Amino acid sequence: MAEAPRTSEARRDAVFGRWVVFSPARSRRPTDLKSHAPANPSPAAAGGGGEGAPKPSCPFCYGRESECAPEIFRVPAPPDASPWRIRVIENLYPALRRDAEPPAPEEEGEPTPGERAVVGFGFHDVVIETPRHDVRLWDLDAAGVGDVLLAYSRRVRQLMEHPAVKYVQVFKNHGASAGASMAHSHSQMLGTPFVPPSVTTRLNCMKEVFERFGKCSLCEFQSKDILVSETDNFSAIVPFAASYPFEIWIIPRHHSSYFHEIDKDTALDLGSLLRTMLAKLSKQLNDLPFNFMIHSAPFGVSTSCLPYTHWFLQIVPQLSVIGGFEIGSGCYINPVFPEDAAKILRELDC
Amino acid sequence: MAEAPRTSEARRDAVFGRWVVFSPARSRRPTDLKSHAPANPSPAAAGGGGEGAPKPSCPFCYGRESECAPEIFRVPAPPDASPWRIRVIENLYPALRRDAEPPAPEEEGEPTPGERAVVGFGFHDVVIETPRHDVRLWDLDAAGVGDVLLAYSRRVRQLMEHPAVKYVQVFKNHGASAGASMAHSHSQMLGTPFVPPSVTTRLNCMKEVFERFGKCSLCEFQSKDILVSETDNFSAIVPFAASYPFEIWIIPRHHSSYFHEIDKDTALDLGSLLRTMLAKLSKQLNDLPFNFMIHSAPFGVSTSCLPYTHWFLQIVPQLSVIGGFEIGSGCYINPVFPEDAAKILRELDC
Ligand SMILES: Nc1ncnc2c1ncn2[C@@H]1O[C@H](COP(=O)(O)OP(=O)(O)O[C@H]2O[C@H](CO)[C@@H](O)[C@H](O)[C@H]2O)[C@@H](O)[C@H]1O
Ligand SMILES: Nc1ncnc2c1ncn2[C@@H]1O[C@H](COP(=O)(O)OP(=O)(O)O[C@H]2O[C@H](CO)[C@@H](O)[C@H](O)[C@H]2O)[C@@H](O)[C@H]1O
Repeated sequence: MAEAPRTSEARRDAVFGRWVVFSPARSRRPTDLKSHAPANPSPAAAGGGGEGAPKPSCPFCYGRESECAPEIFRVPAPPDASPWRIRVIENLYPALRRDAEPPAPEEEGEPTPGERAVVGFGFHDVVIETPRHDVRLWDLDAAGVGDVLLAYSRRVRQLMEHPAVKYVQVFKNHGASAGASMAHSHSQMLGTPFVPPSVTTRLNCMKEVFERFGKCSLCEFQSKDILVSETDNFSAIVPFAASYPFEIWIIPRHHSSYFHEIDKDTALDLGSLLRTMLAKLSKQLNDLPFNFMIHSAPFGVSTSCLPYTHWFLQIVPQLSVIGGFEIGSGCYINPVFPEDAAKILRELDC
Repeated sequence: MAEAPRTSEARRDAVFGRWVVFSPARSRRPTDLKSHAPANPSPAAAGGGGEGAPKPSCPFCYGRESECAPEIFRVPAPPDASPWRIRVIENLYPALRRDAEPPAPEEEGEPTPGERAVVGFGFHDVVIETPRHDVRLWDLDAAGVGDVLLAYSRRVRQLMEHPAVKYVQVFKNHGASAGASMAHSHSQMLGTPFVPPSVTTRLNCMKEVFERFGKCSLCEFQSKDILVSETDNFSAIVPFAASYPFEIWIIPRHHSSYFHEIDKDTALDLGSLLRTMLAKLSKQLNDLPFNFMIHSAPFGVSTSCLPYTHWFLQIVPQLSVIGGFEIGSGCYINPVFPEDAAKILRELDC
């Protein structure tokens, strides 16, 4: 820690084309407002901490299945244990509705130039990752986490069959300041009738890189300094232009466009790496709220796009509050250099 | 309130090209995590509330000017009052540094395909909107708010003279969960050596609309239902595809690309409307944390872009927490339809 402090640097990433400002000095600024950053979350805010007793009122707990929206499928447990290990269910308060009329393929009823409104058709599902209220995702073993990933991919493949579904966003919220309303370990997915804006931006940016350099943005990275850990099939890095402090990307080492094509062995390998990364973050950041998101290719992109679309899993710890600069400009200020975060995470035993 | 509940709808806006999912049913979902939404902020979290006594340790207060980073300019007060009304100063913990070497105009040292790093050159300033700790921006009169806007525009014009500054993001954070670290009423601006990602996206989207329809996205809007208030020069609306509940845009009624070209009378008119909108939001949402951002055109865009770039001011109350769906997809879930929010705000006396 006796090294000379780094000065500010601006970096642009090769996946979203985002500029990020790295400014270690920013972390020294004072505050006279309480609860500024959620850096030391209360046990309640941290959500579903390991010590919590099973909550009698939680509909995601084993034995309360009837209080949930309908089940889509379950992953059974070995006999003599609880009857299920994972349940994929409908969201009881869906943002998009499976019973709405899907928009006609080329419906272009734009009320005002450029604006568009369509009925809220889509699928909004919840993945209950464990029957137990007091178990966090990274408390499961590698195979357990792998099975959750396989449940995601199975459900994505089902949704892909629906002609009006253009994309499925898989994501997890852990802890109140990461948006979670339920403490019981779970994730969600939303199948949308449009390609979401960030997906379009990502594909455009990766295409530009491919056209200029003849290379996929995620197939190689120069610097070992940002590497946290590697397995046969995946690299975990703190990306070169991370928007958030201690952000992690888990990237398949071999080019692959679609997450949902993952096979059993690869899912086990990813399960093991994801488990380790979440354990490291939890240890380093004191069970901080976080989100993770899977970034895949939209369904039915032309085969000419496949060489530059490469799926990955992004983990975002909620260390800093987003302010007007970020909302307005889409550009983030990150006080922690990726190389420094990667070194800390690399050296952490988990 | 006896109307049939609306069902979900997805809308795309004509400025950022963002899809937003409107889902009133979402607001009924339960939570077993405390402090989920910052809907009822504590006085500390709400930041700088009207009742707070002047804080002896606040460097933004009158009399403590020597504890601040250097002053750039001040707006003097009439004799026999405090010697200033507004101060524009350097940020003591700048994200970008004015003393760094500006990047060479065409420096393209990309270490890895598509990635880029430049030194953290730029300007990061703070606008202290009042010498008094217990005064909020909307406690000033219309002329006082207008003068703050004129201070922004004067500083933007100064920064524009620097050949390496490509954009200036003007923004305000109010309250802890909107990111503010200082309670004393202030705003900030960052002059960046690159065009920020959201600005590029906005220009591309507005260009597309212009090419398809021959119209600027912001010069007309069809529906009176989303109008909150109007003055000679500005309309305040809840945008058709608002990303956030009770989001407001204040838009010049006559086409204008650059905020910084605003004149004194127009600034007074805007000051009066901005004041009213902030007072309405504060009344309706109980002094909730919020951000506002000014969206203008980058410096030196070609004149062919001017017909479709139209500046506006966006106000975002921090009612809901961003979760993994929003971070991953760039698509927002908003439980409040713009027409409903606009009606409530329109009918509120302020
Ligand atoms: N009995 C039951 N059966 C089935 N489903 C049930 C249920 N009871 C509750 N649910 C659903 O379970 C989900 C739990 O999800 P999370 O805790 O991850 O966050 P939530 O979706 O509430 O919102 C967060 O994530 C979204 C998306 O990122 C953001 O829009 C939002 O602001 C943020 O708070 C909720 O969507 C809820 O509707
Ligand atoms: N004595 C002094 N003289 C001069 N300046 C002083 C000073 N003491 C403090 N300052 C500066 O005053 C500013 C106050 O700004 P705000 O309260 O609006 O939010 P802040 O910039 O801290 O971060 C919020 O906004 C940014 C940008 O949106 C987000 O990155 C961040 O996460 C969020 O918390 C700080 O930037 C601070 O550096």
